Amino acid sequence: MRYKEFVIEGRNAVLEAFRSGKTIDKLFVLDGCHDGPVMSITREAKKKNTVIHYVDKDRLDGMSTTGKHQGVIAQAAAYEYAEVGDILKAARDKGEDPFLFLLDNIEDPHNLGAIIRTANLAGAHGVIIPKRRAVGLTAVVARTSAGALNYTPVAKVTNLSSTIEDLKKEGLWFVCADMDGEVMYHMNLKGPIGLVIGNEGEGVSRLVKEKCDFTAAIPMKGDIDSLNASVAAGVLAYEVVRQRIQGA
Amino acid sequence: MRYKEFVIEGRNAVLEAFRSGKTIDKLFVLDGCHDGPVMSITREAKKKNTVIHYVDKDRLDGMSTTGKHQGVIAQAAAYEYAEVGDILKAARDKGEDPFLFLLDNIEDPHNLGAIIRTANLAGAHGVIIPKRRAVGLTAVVARTSAGALNYTPVAKVTNLSSTIEDLKKEGLWFVCADMDGEVMYHMNLKGPIGLVIGNEGEGVSRLVKEKCDFTAAIPMKGDIDSLNASVAAGVLAYEVVRQRIQGA
Repeated sequence: MRYKEFVIEGRNAVLEAFRSGKTIDKLFVLDGCHDGPVMSITREAKKKNTVIHYVDKDRLDGMSTTGKHQGVIAQAAAYEYAEVGDILKAARDKGEDPFLFLLDNIEDPHNLGAIIRTANLAGAHGVIIPKRRAVGLTAVVARTSAGALNYTPVAKVTNLSSTIEDLKKEGLWFVCADMDGEVMYHMNLKGPIGLVIGNEGEGVSRLVKEKCDFTAAIPMKGDIDSLNASVAAGVLAYEVVRQRIQGA
Repeated sequence: MRYKEFVIEGRNAVLEAFRSGKTIDKLFVLDGCHDGPVMSITREAKKKNTVIHYVDKDRLDGMSTTGKHQGVIAQAAAYEYAEVGDILKAARDKGEDPFLFLLDNIEDPHNLGAIIRTANLAGAHGVIIPKRRAVGLTAVVARTSAGALNYTPVAKVTNLSSTIEDLKKEGLWFVCADMDGEVMYHMNLKGPIGLVIGNEGEGVSRLVKEKCDFTAAIPMKGDIDSLNASVAAGVLAYEVVRQRIQGA
């Protein structure tokens, strides 16, 4: 994942960056400056556990690229989304069958982070998320991914169904996790594969499910309905890993 | 899990119950009562999405057991911990080999809830947690367990190592999840088993690990260190499920 650093300058821009949940690594504030807007910014910074440096005007002027820092400069970072093509290329470069995760509207950033973490360790080549509705790559996602976001590319697409169509032309098979499917242990999950994981409450949407080649069920022995979305993704991903390792 | 209902009466007691994170199902407030302490209580109730009923004095007097409700009564609920013996009995009653989860200081309530949810669906008979350090059965745990806490018994023990010793006498084997173990697909995880899951940061503690019969590793292909604790618990638990189903 390409991690890009940049500076945000000026009071409104910095405050807005904090409030929008951007990952701010460091905040530089003009020493002795304690007026209302600056206090609002440092309060947000403390909430987010951002390191605050109180520096003199020369230092700020030196860091500034616009010359209009108004006494505050934030060093921010953002994960850049990859392209679906980059993910396929990563698989090709490793000489492996593509192994992708497609997330159909995961809404909880903790789940998204945990799933990216799982994708990394299960040896998946990337994660695809939809542009609308779903959560994006916020600071919480970065933190819960435990560093995986630095390695595992995430692509954002306009329409998950048409991305599945396109990837089928590249030879991928798609399996979605749903209770009405075949028990996953009895399925062949080898070869170039995309795992489709549904939304926390509603599961995989109908349109996306119709595009999938098969539906895999995780056996459920208990009294309740479903596993946590990130646990389900992990259990299914590791069945793929097992079949790839054992060749069975 | 035995779910016990009780009422909490009086302003301080009710406010404290909210602040301590107890599961309050319903709040009854004397209609027309809007003074400071009552406002603090209704504010907490709104934060927790507790249903508030404004009722007359006769209704409150009728519900009160102490006669000192001061205009507020909360209907609370608490999950009672089970005994380890109850968990073994549950397995015996079902005619199944015991399948237990032992959590060595899981600290995040979302992880604990997700693990209890997984334990339920993987057909485990119960979960054992230590009394000290670890998180207990809070409202967050109950919610993230998605109802599993109503079915899957959770026992709290003073010393996890000595509980493992005791359970070995009952014929159980113990496997802990750790990276330096044997790949789980090559191990025999059938029979009466206890899965030991370590703390989020530190893994399984040395003393507990020494008591385990073997160490199972989840294969890791990626760039980072470890899976999220609840995902790891799910992946390992489902390898047990697979072996039990396939008899392989």
